[in-house]
Amino acid sequence: MTHASFSDLATLRQACLSPCPADENAASTVAAREAILTKPAGSLGRLEELVAWLARWQRSATPTLDHVQCLVFAGNHGVVAQGVSAWPAEVTALMVDNFRHGGAAINQLARNAQAKLDVIALEDLRMTGDFTQVDAMTPEVFLRVVDAGFNAVDPHASLVCLGEMGIGNTTAAAAVALALFGDDAENWAGPGAGSDQAGIMRKISVLKAGIARHRNYLADPLEVARRLGGHELAAIMGAILAARKHNIPVLLDGFVCTAASAPLYTLHPDGLAHCRIAHCSAEPGHIRLAEALAQKPLLDLGLRLGEASGAALVVPLLRAALACHTGMHSFAEAGIAS
Amino acid sequence: MTHASFSDLATLRQACLSPCPADENAASTVAAREAILTKPAGSLGRLEELVAWLARWQRSATPTLDHVQCLVFAGNHGVVAQGVSAWPAEVTALMVDNFRHGGAAINQLARNAQAKLDVIALEDLRMTGDFTQVDAMTPEVFLRVVDAGFNAVDPHASLVCLGEMGIGNTTAAAAVALALFGDDAENWAGPGAGSDQAGIMRKISVLKAGIARHRNYLADPLEVARRLGGHELAAIMGAILAARKHNIPVLLDGFVCTAASAPLYTLHPDGLAHCRIAHCSAEPGHIRLAEALAQKPLLDLGLRLGEASGAALVVPLLRAALACHTGMHSFAEAGIAS
Repeated sequence: MTHASFSDLATLRQACLSPCPADENAASTVAAREAILTKPAGSLGRLEELVAWLARWQRSATPTLDHVQCLVFAGNHGVVAQGVSAWPAEVTALMVDNFRHGGAAINQLARNAQAKLDVIALEDLRMTGDFTQVDAMTPEVFLRVVDAGFNAVDPHASLVCLGEMGIGNTTAAAAVALALFGDDAENWAGPGAGSDQAGIMRKISVLKAGIARHRNYLADPLEVARRLGGHELAAIMGAILAARKHNIPVLLDGFVCTAASAPLYTLHPDGLAHCRIAHCSAEPGHIRLAEALAQKPLLDLGLRLGEASGAALVVPLLRAALACHTGMHSFAEAGIAS
Repeated sequence: MTHASFSDLATLRQACLSPCPADENAASTVAAREAILTKPAGSLGRLEELVAWLARWQRSATPTLDHVQCLVFAGNHGVVAQGVSAWPAEVTALMVDNFRHGGAAINQLARNAQAKLDVIALEDLRMTGDFTQVDAMTPEVFLRVVDAGFNAVDPHASLVCLGEMGIGNTTAAAAVALALFGDDAENWAGPGAGSDQAGIMRKISVLKAGIARHRNYLADPLEVARRLGGHELAAIMGAILAARKHNIPVLLDGFVCTAASAPLYTLHPDGLAHCRIAHCSAEPGHIRLAEALAQKPLLDLGLRLGEASGAALVVPLLRAALACHTGMHSFAEAGIAS
């Protein structure tokens, strides 16, 4: 049983401030093997770096992808009352049903990735507080959903793909990004699941109102997550902490998922070292957010769906990278003088 | 039997000048289904466009990826006598052996892609003529290797991934690109499989010498391919023609493969419409070449290996795109008002 309870914010903060280090020996062993394989040095580009990354965080010189878990967290957002989404909040529950009936994109993508899909609807899909009026979550609810995320991670997974579903959650994600990294609200507000220009203008006003309301608490990344974030964002943070504890590399999905992860980076510069941003979302704030986390997304295919879709898409690339690493012959075996 | 013989250059030219049109009905049917699936319109980005592309060129509203063929052509290059490669020409044959023994990157990547791998060593790996001194190929040899490429395509394939192996072939590819698209030789010469700065300077001199020698014939793309290209480049051109004839979409690999395809684009602006550039190679000329062909590579992972490695890497993404298209439920099925 892997139940971890963050009984109070101080306990959670301590976990965030003390991420375990990487296994650099495993990464070095992998790099040494990479150098003798029948290809010009470095010619598999980022695929080589990804194998070292798997080794570093699985703490094994022979990393595997035998058990890939896709974990999608769903939550609802009080801020939809401000007209920030093109879709009604009821769609969150309908999409959770769709996940459970196998009808969504992530169902197909998880199967294509040979990954197990787990969908967690948080707090029975009750809404968070509207952050323009109140805190999105009380400390009790916040800790409960972080715990739910932590405990949703299969401790035996080789890799976890994280994603989300939640009508209104690009607004919560933009608020978190704005609070953590500054810049203009305009630069973090995008169309999300299909807002028109008027919707984006409302979103910008809502972001400014949220920041103004909570301005005295924004120096603390956990307060940012609690006051401006959402249930599924907090759960993603918990899942990232669990993955670090259980030696599991993490693929982060798009804008919302990356924003959910960001407090861990601002709390500790090494807090997301076991995570890779899978793809660059078409949501305009995502590339800015990736840069703020010093990451370069692996794919750039114009996706803007969430659901862990971009993360699941990267799994076959990791399998390819690992297949090259484990299956290729060395120069000596091939009789080639390197 | 699908044997096609381009008995003379005029017959080949006629084939290049008359590419068959796409099946836009199939693409439209696919787009209409895409619009009713449970996701915001367009939120799967380029994955949606890729399904339409498969439909358009398989001439089917229900495209499949049941039979994927990876086709790697190998050839040797007389121009290596000028010191343009970091590796001796013998490595071409050793790598062909490596392909046949399952030890190369493409063996692992083809398996990961659930693709059949076929390796064709052209002209018993005899060298082309050194293009700084003579034509790379006589018309007879040129037509023979184009034919070999044409006939190597499995007419029942759902998709063909094209790639190459040939010590010295980034020099041939750069010469073709320079002849077709102009610009400075410096902008097309890169490190290839590992040349140092001195090697790149030799490559630039060789490119200038080749262009100077053949300057009176460069207005004709087929003459460019014959005089400056290589056996494996010409075979790739033949394979692309065969794929068009047999309704097979094509994934092009990196710099050399893209350069091999380029004469078909300059002969007819629609000549490569059934092809997608799979990835952007780290070879610096590749992005320039992709732009000259009005294409945006699908991946950008810093690969610079050839062997169809980047093309094979895209196959699981196509499978993912197709899985979403065929497996997702509609808004009506999910009870969501769209």
